[in-house]
Amino acid sequence: MNYSRILHEIAAEITPFRQEGRVAAYIPELAKVHPDKFGIHLRCIDGSDHSFGDNEEKFSIQSISKVFSLSLAISLAGEKIWERVGVEPSGNPFNSLVQLEYEKGIPRNPLINAGALVVADILLSHLERPKIDFLNFVRKIAGDRDIYFNETVAHSEKEWGFRNISLAYMLKSFGNIHNDVEAVLDFYFHQCSIEMSCRELANAFLLYAYHGELVGTGETILTTSETKRLNAIMQTCGFYDEAGEFTFKVGLPGKSGVGGGIAAIYPQKYSVVVWSPRLNEKGNSVLGMKALELLTTKTGTSIF
Amino acid sequence: MNYSRILHEIAAEITPFRQEGRVAAYIPELAKVHPDKFGIHLRCIDGSDHSFGDNEEKFSIQSISKVFSLSLAISLAGEKIWERVGVEPSGNPFNSLVQLEYEKGIPRNPLINAGALVVADILLSHLERPKIDFLNFVRKIAGDRDIYFNETVAHSEKEWGFRNISLAYMLKSFGNIHNDVEAVLDFYFHQCSIEMSCRELANAFLLYAYHGELVGTGETILTTSETKRLNAIMQTCGFYDEAGEFTFKVGLPGKSGVGGGIAAIYPQKYSVVVWSPRLNEKGNSVLGMKALELLTTKTGTSIF
Amino acid sequence: MNYSRILHEIAAEITPFRQEGRVAAYIPELAKVHPDKFGIHLRCIDGSDHSFGDNEEKFSIQSISKVFSLSLAISLAGEKIWERVGVEPSGNPFNSLVQLEYEKGIPRNPLINAGALVVADILLSHLERPKIDFLNFVRKIAGDRDIYFNETVAHSEKEWGFRNISLAYMLKSFGNIHNDVEAVLDFYFHQCSIEMSCRELANAFLLYAYHGELVGTGETILTTSETKRLNAIMQTCGFYDEAGEFTFKVGLPGKSGVGGGIAAIYPQKYSVVVWSPRLNEKGNSVLGMKALELLTTKTGTSIF
Amino acid sequence: MNYSRILHEIAAEITPFRQEGRVAAYIPELAKVHPDKFGIHLRCIDGSDHSFGDNEEKFSIQSISKVFSLSLAISLAGEKIWERVGVEPSGNPFNSLVQLEYEKGIPRNPLINAGALVVADILLSHLERPKIDFLNFVRKIAGDRDIYFNETVAHSEKEWGFRNISLAYMLKSFGNIHNDVEAVLDFYFHQCSIEMSCRELANAFLLYAYHGELVGTGETILTTSETKRLNAIMQTCGFYDEAGEFTFKVGLPGKSGVGGGIAAIYPQKYSVVVWSPRLNEKGNSVLGMKALELLTTKTGTSIF
Repeated sequence: MNYSRILHEIAAEITPFRQEGRVAAYIPELAKVHPDKFGIHLRCIDGSDHSFGDNEEKFSIQSISKVFSLSLAISLAGEKIWERVGVEPSGNPFNSLVQLEYEKGIPRNPLINAGALVVADILLSHLERPKIDFLNFVRKIAGDRDIYFNETVAHSEKEWGFRNISLAYMLKSFGNIHNDVEAVLDFYFHQCSIEMSCRELANAFLLYAYHGELVGTGETILTTSETKRLNAIMQTCGFYDEAGEFTFKVGLPGKSGVGGGIAAIYPQKYSVVVWSPRLNEKGNSVLGMKALELLTTKTGTSIF
Repeated sequence: MNYSRILHEIAAEITPFRQEGRVAAYIPELAKVHPDKFGIHLRCIDGSDHSFGDNEEKFSIQSISKVFSLSLAISLAGEKIWERVGVEPSGNPFNSLVQLEYEKGIPRNPLINAGALVVADILLSHLERPKIDFLNFVRKIAGDRDIYFNETVAHSEKEWGFRNISLAYMLKSFGNIHNDVEAVLDFYFHQCSIEMSCRELANAFLLYAYHGELVGTGETILTTSETKRLNAIMQTCGFYDEAGEFTFKVGLPGKSGVGGGIAAIYPQKYSVVVWSPRLNEKGNSVLGMKALELLTTKTGTSIF
Repeated sequence: MNYSRILHEIAAEITPFRQEGRVAAYIPELAKVHPDKFGIHLRCIDGSDHSFGDNEEKFSIQSISKVFSLSLAISLAGEKIWERVGVEPSGNPFNSLVQLEYEKGIPRNPLINAGALVVADILLSHLERPKIDFLNFVRKIAGDRDIYFNETVAHSEKEWGFRNISLAYMLKSFGNIHNDVEAVLDFYFHQCSIEMSCRELANAFLLYAYHGELVGTGETILTTSETKRLNAIMQTCGFYDEAGEFTFKVGLPGKSGVGGGIAAIYPQKYSVVVWSPRLNEKGNSVLGMKALELLTTKTGTSIF
Repeated sequence: MNYSRILHEIAAEITPFRQEGRVAAYIPELAKVHPDKFGIHLRCIDGSDHSFGDNEEKFSIQSISKVFSLSLAISLAGEKIWERVGVEPSGNPFNSLVQLEYEKGIPRNPLINAGALVVADILLSHLERPKIDFLNFVRKIAGDRDIYFNETVAHSEKEWGFRNISLAYMLKSFGNIHNDVEAVLDFYFHQCSIEMSCRELANAFLLYAYHGELVGTGETILTTSETKRLNAIMQTCGFYDEAGEFTFKVGLPGKSGVGGGIAAIYPQKYSVVVWSPRLNEKGNSVLGMKALELLTTKTGTSIF
């Protein structure tokens, strides 16, 4: 498969949609990114790399970080985390809070904000130096030391993330946050502020395409079974209330972030990351969705 | 892969759970089935068959029929059906009606009851003799003429299916049922009353494992792309509000019915159908869920 | 108090709002009424009458009939009806169905459609000839034989009232409709189709201002306690999701209908009925609301 | 009317229910009160007082304070407060959050917690020294300087009131809290911690029975119209999701608190306050509800 040629074709074919969508503006820092940025990076488990555009430029990974925190939580706490968070898709966004009330503070899955807050709380209970330990975990699976929090973004989230603060206190009222709420939020806002390039993210996600092993070192981060389950959760819950749409059109497990990134994997073959900051109304990158739809169509690599 | 041996192992390993769950009793006819029935049938695309137990005995396929009606609707009306029904998972059951109100009568997906009623309505608009035409479609893809509606079950649904009648009128009030409501319900209740054995269902589902072609005749029922999308919908929406759980534990596209059947496929390899009437509280077969979890674990054939 | 002069003042002061709102059009028959009609009739318990405009013209009383059916049900079945329907306001309309699911088929109160359907079912279980018996009850409390169903309206409701049909089957699925659903709906649609003038309605409502007695004959229809409770329900639940607004601005127990009528009472003093077909977006008569607000302001007769 | 004798009769008749219900325990301080306390105090606008039991003992007024904060907000900001909070009853409690999301951060009414937080925010914008100014307002209408916050209770609410904190941040996320969230919560928790006796509360509530004037001094706190509207809000929204029940059985405008107090008024006649800490499952005082039902039955003073 000539992936490089295909990535170039894709970049050409998505041109008509380049002006669609809007950059996330709910925190000032995110709004500053240039809306026309576009990068894509595909890495095969044989180690070959294929890319196009701004694939080396760092951006705010935001919710993509939830996959990393979930991975670390699974490796630290195992099956027990499923007592505090479910694995079902969440339906439409408007239900999120009522769902939390209805289901007594158990978030539907670990990739919605409520679930990621519970996962953050679990990490706080297991890590000695939560923020730096988490950062080092991401660095390890990405195989790259040059990865950092963006403190300005993290601080900005604290200033403007009232809905997340509201969610965290709601979880606390149900007893599903064990640590201090402010500490959990501080960790969560930092986790989301991590900046990585498409290339770095593709390196990190290769883990999920390679049954939980680091391709380079052979180190096992997750068991095969844990990896499959994590991929299953990405498939059903990775795109807010567009998870079905992404599964329907792209057919790969993946995760999006409001920074405009989307990471996805094809088991035993490749990881791929696209970045373009303009989002559709569901909060997913317009060009990212289109590029991945074209990728699986052109390569016949939908898992279905 | 020695599937036959594996099926026997599975049958042995699920023994401790044989008394769990309860047979569906909301209509008298369904309650009459013997609760201890258990059958499994796996068919590979190379034509080989593997089975255990009551795999030749017919049972009420119920919601599994929604996959067939959706397939026929796609083949008749194409992409246009997505204007009237979504592809997103529905979240918890309790939301179904409020979701319908909130989203102006567009059901979340075609595998929940509301969505299947819209699909039934689409079929009524396209078929000359809806019931017999639909039955013949199922017979064709199953490669078997000996498949019938159970009129007693269909009639019983009419007598007791007040919630489905309620849903249908709700959809009508939003203009998303075009035909006479009674006719749509009559078709829908008949569709659900079809009786098939594990073997027959496995034959029919092989279509979805084989990019939309009938393995025997090579006839194309759905395009490759349509098949992948249908599998994607099964993956995210096929198990009521346990779709995530099934994806998480089993990792195959599939569909369950309250008659105790579960049909699933592994793309380009096999279809598999389990039948055991005792249901968990979410309405899915207890042994069916466990058997399929064991199957993908033992064979390493989760799609993730 | 010179009520006649006050009614004339009110008629003058509401002139600026005469073009606001829209006539109900969900059934063709209701849409035919002339939108500029306006009538008001106030009757004191001393027997004096005060009126203005089209107070003698009959219109479709619609949901105002729910007060009559509830009265008859209370007189026939007593306290037992509160096992099947609540007395709490229903909050916003969008909750109606989810509330019904959440609270296991017990409608919040007897003045929302779901509750009125349960009341209709209760009447069907108690009356020998339900429709004619109910009509005669209304005739008696109005002191007028010249009151009839409008069969065209009743039939039109059956043709277009899909949401009410949906509600009725939902109630049936919870076991809170005991009779045949079609029979309940037939009764309900007839009940709503009754046509009365402002004068006739004011006569009938005087009952609720006069502790349950008919002013003319002294016959007791409801006990004092039953009457107070019925007035309390009108106060908290009589105006769809504008009950709070009406209580806030008008301060009298009352009930509105989509035919444009509003009936209200001031205990131990008067009943008053306004009719103007143009409705606000909550389904209540624009001029009716304004006229009654002016009435209680000018006369100082809010119950608060 | 011999109110004193009637209060004694009531105290006797409610004896069988003295063990029903449970003292609020969500904050440790409230749980410490003796569950058998019972006091009632009725004050007529002619200045006569009637009482029974522990009517002089101070208790935590909790949500009853919402009536005072609303009164002060109306007197300071007038009609403009209705742009930020509604006047409709809220239906069942489970809807509170989804309602807030659905209606874009406008609480249904000022007597639910969300609405009271908005009112607190309004007061913060208008008062120079919010807490002491508010306390002085309560002292003035109660005609008593000996009224204080309970700092332990206020602090305890901060420690345990996670749901209220969650609500406040949700409101902030919709822009319906203008001041610092922590400051609003600090004010709100203090407001709820005020301790008053039945006698003091009855003195304060006499204002609402006397068209907004202080009976002693004749000073106008609210206009007649404002008073009527405030009474109307108490009638439809004063008892969580038992507002309809209270209206149905008691028929007076009133407000309850989880400290076990209930204050109610009969316009132009009297105010009455009952205190008994055992609450029903809706959060209202068991004996308080029963005592007031008996009071209006025995005296015929329901407003309906």
